[in-house]
Amino acid sequence: MSLMQHSASISSSSSAFLGESNIFSRTSKVSLPSNKSGLCKCVSSPPTEKTAYNTKVARNANMAKLQAGYLFPEIARRREAHILKYPDAQVISLGIGDTTEPIPKVITSAMTKRSHALSTLEGYSGYGAEQGDKQLRAAIASTFYGDLGIEEGDIFVSDGAKSDISRLQILFGSNLTMAVQDPSYPAYVDSSVIMGQTGQFQKDVEKYCNIEYMRCTWENGFFPDLSTVSRTDVIFFCSPNNPTGASATREQLMKLVQFAKDNGSIIVYDSAYAMYISDDSPRSIFEIPGAKEVAIETSSLSKFAGFTGVRLGWTVVPKELHFSDGFPVAKDFNRIVCTCFNGASNIAQAGGLACLSPEGLKAMHKVIGFYKENTEIIVDTFNSLGFSVYGGKNAPYVWVHFPGRSSWDVFSEILEKTHLVTTPGSGFGPGGEGFIRVSAFGHRGNVLEASKRFKQLYK
Amino acid sequence: MSLMQHSASISSSSSAFLGESNIFSRTSKVSLPSNKSGLCKCVSSPPTEKTAYNTKVARNANMAKLQAGYLFPEIARRREAHILKYPDAQVISLGIGDTTEPIPKVITSAMTKRSHALSTLEGYSGYGAEQGDKQLRAAIASTFYGDLGIEEGDIFVSDGAKSDISRLQILFGSNLTMAVQDPSYPAYVDSSVIMGQTGQFQKDVEKYCNIEYMRCTWENGFFPDLSTVSRTDVIFFCSPNNPTGASATREQLMKLVQFAKDNGSIIVYDSAYAMYISDDSPRSIFEIPGAKEVAIETSSLSKFAGFTGVRLGWTVVPKELHFSDGFPVAKDFNRIVCTCFNGASNIAQAGGLACLSPEGLKAMHKVIGFYKENTEIIVDTFNSLGFSVYGGKNAPYVWVHFPGRSSWDVFSEILEKTHLVTTPGSGFGPGGEGFIRVSAFGHRGNVLEASKRFKQLYK
Repeated sequence: MSLMQHSASISSSSSAFLGESNIFSRTSKVSLPSNKSGLCKCVSSPPTEKTAYNTKVARNANMAKLQAGYLFPEIARRREAHILKYPDAQVISLGIGDTTEPIPKVITSAMTKRSHALSTLEGYSGYGAEQGDKQLRAAIASTFYGDLGIEEGDIFVSDGAKSDISRLQILFGSNLTMAVQDPSYPAYVDSSVIMGQTGQFQKDVEKYCNIEYMRCTWENGFFPDLSTVSRTDVIFFCSPNNPTGASATREQLMKLVQFAKDNGSIIVYDSAYAMYISDDSPRSIFEIPGAKEVAIETSSLSKFAGFTGVRLGWTVVPKELHFSDGFPVAKDFNRIVCTCFNGASNIAQAGGLACLSPEGLKAMHKVIGFYKENTEIIVDTFNSLGFSVYGGKNAPYVWVHFPGRSSWDVFSEILEKTHLVTTPGSGFGPGGEGFIRVSAFGHRGNVLEASKRFKQLYK
Repeated sequence: MSLMQHSASISSSSSAFLGESNIFSRTSKVSLPSNKSGLCKCVSSPPTEKTAYNTKVARNANMAKLQAGYLFPEIARRREAHILKYPDAQVISLGIGDTTEPIPKVITSAMTKRSHALSTLEGYSGYGAEQGDKQLRAAIASTFYGDLGIEEGDIFVSDGAKSDISRLQILFGSNLTMAVQDPSYPAYVDSSVIMGQTGQFQKDVEKYCNIEYMRCTWENGFFPDLSTVSRTDVIFFCSPNNPTGASATREQLMKLVQFAKDNGSIIVYDSAYAMYISDDSPRSIFEIPGAKEVAIETSSLSKFAGFTGVRLGWTVVPKELHFSDGFPVAKDFNRIVCTCFNGASNIAQAGGLACLSPEGLKAMHKVIGFYKENTEIIVDTFNSLGFSVYGGKNAPYVWVHFPGRSSWDVFSEILEKTHLVTTPGSGFGPGGEGFIRVSAFGHRGNVLEASKRFKQLYK
């Protein structure tokens, strides 16, 4: 349907694009010549809509494969609708994993200082390196990868792991196969669909064709049975896991690395929750010998330092990682970063550097400790109600089982009856069906109040 | 070639990922089991290189099409090499268009305030909307698109135009065709190659197959002869142009919009230099009637407010813009933004809002005025030397003609003999051959010194 109706005359704007002297002073009336190509076709349109012109550009078929909206905006939409319905309700969100506690002053003061410096001749700087500030890259390498052989040059600083996951997908392109944990953070699957690595969504199994879903449930201790997993080019693996909160043990990660080596696969390891680990689970895939030849790691300060809004993350692409023709993956990723990105905000990077100072690390651990206490409260709540509860120990997420029930039904029941926002497990993949993810990010009072409401609902 | 050698035992790291109590306290020695798949093959390796393992993941063939490095990192590399060669030289860069003047205090103080607020209970905020802060989106709409019918919901705030160009390419996918001005900002072509929209690079003509290069030279007043341009799905168009500094007139843009309508194409209009316009050239493609049905506009505060390092831009996708099946482009772009991005830094957004206050606008215009004085100095310099000089009037770039010479040769000559960094015109496409782009971003003293050196070299 191609329709067009355009003989309107629109006055040109007075705008800030104008020189200062003539802001708001310019108006000119111009008409577009009538369409010459004969494309124009008048059709009747619904009364509420104006006539519409369509370009001849075909919609990207991969976009059309995507199901509904991205999970978290969908939850935000339902939350808004709930607030409209119950304007007086005290809604508490333990849904999207959004940090709530102030950023320690030792970190914000570095950002304040950097912001101020930008207004001075000595302190001003323009474009930074696309890969990030050298000092910050070195600090990330030494702080998080100490003696693991990861160097400054292997680190690419970014505006967060979500952006980096997409940049990695651009790097990989459309002609490869990928595996994800099921359930998993939706950005892996959705970005894969967008890049054209998958087939259509199959409603009966709730899976996309051509993605290997590695089932991670309570039955297998949230680690996939690799003997049943088909080879793929790329394996997305998040530990501690979002949403299940499970962290893989050293032995499990050794199996995963060996599996990747046997298959010549690349692991994209998401360690965005690594600082929440309490036991001796590895904090980085690079603790596993040989991982540098088969793994990329992406991480972020979002959950470590409350940087969800500040935006700062990084990706490690070891120089030892090669494509099948021997070409270093890092070299292509560097090209992607230089072409598709212009570096993280210099103010955020100043904050990142402060995070990694001895005082910054101490302050981060304190806030993480606070959220871990929240986690305990939530775990105890559901345990006391007789639920099977997973996660929590090494992650800010508690994974609660509602056997035989639909996740979205439970989500709606909780929201409707307690004004609490959670996240339906099935939003993370079919393997999450029957579960609810409860986030431990919240003020203490809210977490205690939520605990009370859960107890009232499910007593 | 698949080779592998891994029986090393690597001690696991002590790292910040560990709980605070046990930082630097953990060491364990583990060995990876030997490879079981029989993939392992020992081959002799060059003496300087360790044995290398290659995954079986094929390199993205589109990445292999890219020529050399992205332009500006390549220039930075040559600059570094020059400094190594002449450690005492006072190198002045008028190369990459990088702002040099401090950000006005009215703007930085908003960022200082926001940074500080993040350390308080009342001022802290986590994830913002992926599309950007509502207030900022509204301010962009009203400031830059006043009465042009662009609304808050049409604006997507980002970390800069370069990132948005890539996100637009992800939106479009690989199955469409594109046109660019020749010469043009390299990110359009390179991101198109990466997304697989093009064929191989053809060395004889210095063009990629399947890209329509719209020649914009002094012969045609830097506006393409549209009667010779083939239809493409997407048309990248930057005005005022980087690198030529030429801005399209209202009549030219009306022709462009009509051309897009006739062909059912989508224009991606880059207005990142619009505030440098001195004459009555349109500041936005949306000043042209009907443009909302065929155009996207991307812009940025980088060159308006010295935000090259702070990172803040936006893209306008009007709700009137549709794919051939009638699906709104904005709806798919929203999905891309939600899946591949997590919003611009909240501190940068606070700065952006301050830019658009009456005092912020005034301050921005003052800095822009300063750079425009620089531009005049550079234009006068080359005019006095008898060169043909273009651009400058409506843009911070001066486009100098060296007829019959190679741009890279001229670039090298200038660097070698004057320690001045410029940008070779051919780096922007074959249509830039024989030209040098001189950027007006610089401290006044440096611009005057550069002028002197140019005069010495070419007197």
